[in-house]
Amino acid sequence: MALASFTARFKQFVTPDALRSYLVEFISTFFYVFVVVGSAMASRKLMSNSATDPSSLVLVAIANTFALSSSVYIASNVSGGHVNPAVTFGLAVGGHISVSTALFYWVSQMLASVMACLLLKVATVSQDVPIYTIASEMTGFGASMVEGVLTFGLVYAVYAGGDTRSGPMRSIGPLVIGLMAGSMVLAAGPFSGGSMNPALAFGSAVVAGRFKNQAVYWVGPLIGAAVAGLLYDNVMFPGHVSGRVNSDGTTRV
Amino acid sequence: MALASFTARFKQFVTPDALRSYLVEFISTFFYVFVVVGSAMASRKLMSNSATDPSSLVLVAIANTFALSSSVYIASNVSGGHVNPAVTFGLAVGGHISVSTALFYWVSQMLASVMACLLLKVATVSQDVPIYTIASEMTGFGASMVEGVLTFGLVYAVYAGGDTRSGPMRSIGPLVIGLMAGSMVLAAGPFSGGSMNPALAFGSAVVAGRFKNQAVYWVGPLIGAAVAGLLYDNVMFPGHVSGRVNSDGTTRV
Amino acid sequence: MALASFTARFKQFVTPDALRSYLVEFISTFFYVFVVVGSAMASRKLMSNSATDPSSLVLVAIANTFALSSSVYIASNVSGGHVNPAVTFGLAVGGHISVSTALFYWVSQMLASVMACLLLKVATVSQDVPIYTIASEMTGFGASMVEGVLTFGLVYAVYAGGDTRSGPMRSIGPLVIGLMAGSMVLAAGPFSGGSMNPALAFGSAVVAGRFKNQAVYWVGPLIGAAVAGLLYDNVMFPGHVSGRVNSDGTTRV
Amino acid sequence: MALASFTARFKQFVTPDALRSYLVEFISTFFYVFVVVGSAMASRKLMSNSATDPSSLVLVAIANTFALSSSVYIASNVSGGHVNPAVTFGLAVGGHISVSTALFYWVSQMLASVMACLLLKVATVSQDVPIYTIASEMTGFGASMVEGVLTFGLVYAVYAGGDTRSGPMRSIGPLVIGLMAGSMVLAAGPFSGGSMNPALAFGSAVVAGRFKNQAVYWVGPLIGAAVAGLLYDNVMFPGHVSGRVNSDGTTRV
Repeated sequence: MALASFTARFKQFVTPDALRSYLVEFISTFFYVFVVVGSAMASRKLMSNSATDPSSLVLVAIANTFALSSSVYIASNVSGGHVNPAVTFGLAVGGHISVSTALFYWVSQMLASVMACLLLKVATVSQDVPIYTIASEMTGFGASMVEGVLTFGLVYAVYAGGDTRSGPMRSIGPLVIGLMAGSMVLAAGPFSGGSMNPALAFGSAVVAGRFKNQAVYWVGPLIGAAVAGLLYDNVMFPGHVSGRVNSDGTTRV
Repeated sequence: MALASFTARFKQFVTPDALRSYLVEFISTFFYVFVVVGSAMASRKLMSNSATDPSSLVLVAIANTFALSSSVYIASNVSGGHVNPAVTFGLAVGGHISVSTALFYWVSQMLASVMACLLLKVATVSQDVPIYTIASEMTGFGASMVEGVLTFGLVYAVYAGGDTRSGPMRSIGPLVIGLMAGSMVLAAGPFSGGSMNPALAFGSAVVAGRFKNQAVYWVGPLIGAAVAGLLYDNVMFPGHVSGRVNSDGTTRV
Repeated sequence: MALASFTARFKQFVTPDALRSYLVEFISTFFYVFVVVGSAMASRKLMSNSATDPSSLVLVAIANTFALSSSVYIASNVSGGHVNPAVTFGLAVGGHISVSTALFYWVSQMLASVMACLLLKVATVSQDVPIYTIASEMTGFGASMVEGVLTFGLVYAVYAGGDTRSGPMRSIGPLVIGLMAGSMVLAAGPFSGGSMNPALAFGSAVVAGRFKNQAVYWVGPLIGAAVAGLLYDNVMFPGHVSGRVNSDGTTRV
Repeated sequence: MALASFTARFKQFVTPDALRSYLVEFISTFFYVFVVVGSAMASRKLMSNSATDPSSLVLVAIANTFALSSSVYIASNVSGGHVNPAVTFGLAVGGHISVSTALFYWVSQMLASVMACLLLKVATVSQDVPIYTIASEMTGFGASMVEGVLTFGLVYAVYAGGDTRSGPMRSIGPLVIGLMAGSMVLAAGPFSGGSMNPALAFGSAVVAGRFKNQAVYWVGPLIGAAVAGLLYDNVMFPGHVSGRVNSDGTTRV
């Protein structure tokens, strides 16, 4: 009986539409992580020493913006284009997707991130995959706070960018989400790392085999995302009816 | 009696809608200032010496464009997306928002700027917060004139970008405002600083504790903004009916 | 009699709408030239020597893209947003604006370019204004050919970007025009200069007092613009009815 | 009889509309290749030695994004804006254009690429035209796999960007395609080259006279494009009716 009930409940997460959502989250997160981590590796390969300079940061930040805008765009009409476990969490807290769906999204995003980092490692014949780290003068708490504040802004942009009340401006929603993320990398990259995405930090850590400061990239972003979702739904637009992910190109529902 | 009248008048500035406008101006200005000042700090941290180079300027200008486009975007359907006391001033001069509302916007923007610079100082364990300065060969009058001319262009773009007569092109209005600001930073950054935003110059000056040349970043921009507003409303589109900030995603009203 | 006729004809070029068009062409060309020439001066100030490097070219090309996209945008609903005598010429050849209007546009654009370069010279306390030059190994004919081919592409983009048959994609027309121009600067900058705009080359030459190679930046671009206009109107969309500049946000008519 | 039949069949590929499609593919591919190869030459000219650095990669990647977005845009309302034999192949596999039309597109794209590289060689007075190469530590198989995976992502973006079900977001379709391509250049440029476009690799190889690793830039991209087309049509949107290239501004049909 319990098994039958479990099976019945499970089935709604393996409908063709649901599976497509997981697949497209996998595809978009894969390319996002491939570009962000790959651009850091490319930058390191081009500099003669291990140092970094402003043009390296520009390179990585532009890669982040370009990749996030296009990844969100290509996924938006199937899965909503989260590309980020923190975004999925923020939308789940706001009731826009169910907790179970969120878990499947998380699994897709984590798997995609690990696969992207693996491909980079294999394709570059075992170059080291860089992991997110914090500046030596910062504390873990300070870095997590910064990552949390930035993720708040990013998830707020996801809410605003997918809001159907934006009228004609909704058409550039995915672009704005990428611009927001890239701008934050330019400001916070050399300090807290500028991940704002637990999957990004997780995938590179798994393939590199180092999990130092991993908590920094989970605790802050998840809290920031939850606060953004609650604020947007309850303070900014309190009368908004929550719904589930739909497939007509909206980033949120 | 006078008190009752004052209380009644005050109440219209603390309605839920009005408070939401102030809050969203706070949020968007906070992230804009965080990114612009933070990117200057990031650039300085990455260069081995105190010098600057073209890639530093590219870094700061791209950060400005990305952050302003996304900040204006996320605020536009609640507060109009000013993110800049000069823009608020220009719209008040044109009669698009009341003087009282403009004052509340100014307070939100100033507070947000100070808070963003404080977070940067705390998170980076007391690195110096950079302030806007003018090139040694320039006079304060010349710098203020340049800042004023540039702010004229920026506020003109705000008017054009939020004009509902732009048809389908209105959808990229917030993007154009950011592109305009970033392009001006690339031209004027090493000369007058390229602030075009009194809140930006104010917040960093408060946290750094140095107010040298502060007037440069107030006088020019406020005059430029007022001229742009008057020109657009009275010369370019003289028949346009002025209104108040509305909440349907328009940048101006 | 002849005088009366002349006066009558002249009057149609000084209607309020016409004067607004000239004014907005002045404003948008002023900011475009200010940013393009100013960014070259900024780049030169930031490099310790007179050399140039890839990040300088990135700086100037991004400035060009950001400034052209936003300048075209802010002018498009009044004058059509030409910002370039070659574009005006291409549209006049195609019959989209009258020759007389084109001449007034040219005067506005030239004046704006000279004024922008003058402001840069004054504000920077008489730094040299850079002029467009061609690489030492190139001939004037080769450089003019390259500039002509690039201007062909730019004017083709102006036609396509302002075409009302583009449907929803018309909203990003001004953005695409800027992207096209910036991409060409990245390719041709160190070879032929990458001006594609006679006003740009003219203004800086007037203020610098040097007219070497000036013909390169006029002959090629004007021919390229004319060919693009004729091709688009007669080959690509032969049934298109030509018209005059209108004021509903279209880049061409 | 066979000849008459052949002639009749041939005629449908030389209708005015068809010829316009080939011409516009030629024009857009010409400018795309000119900018991508030209920006690599510009970058090499600006660096004092043969080395490369992060700002060179930023230069080439931004050139790629700006040029691809604008090239796709200007061609989209006539030919669909492929600008890439792999994209044409992917759309032919999905049945969106006929095999014969695809062949004519290929010829236009190849010719355009060779012509663009020739112009660069002539205009720069016989500077070497750079060809796509793979990093010394990579195998040809690994590089081809990376190019294939990236082309999969690019063609997926072409499908998503031209999908009429995207609603208002379709307006930024060409922009997203360029952002996707540029982000991949930033990640893969120093490893596999980041061509994702057989015409690009072909034209520069023809003019440079070196065909080493040419297969890398054909095998991977064509397979990746075919997989993307099949996945989008059969898995993501299985009920979608296939059609032919139309002329109302859609990238795919």
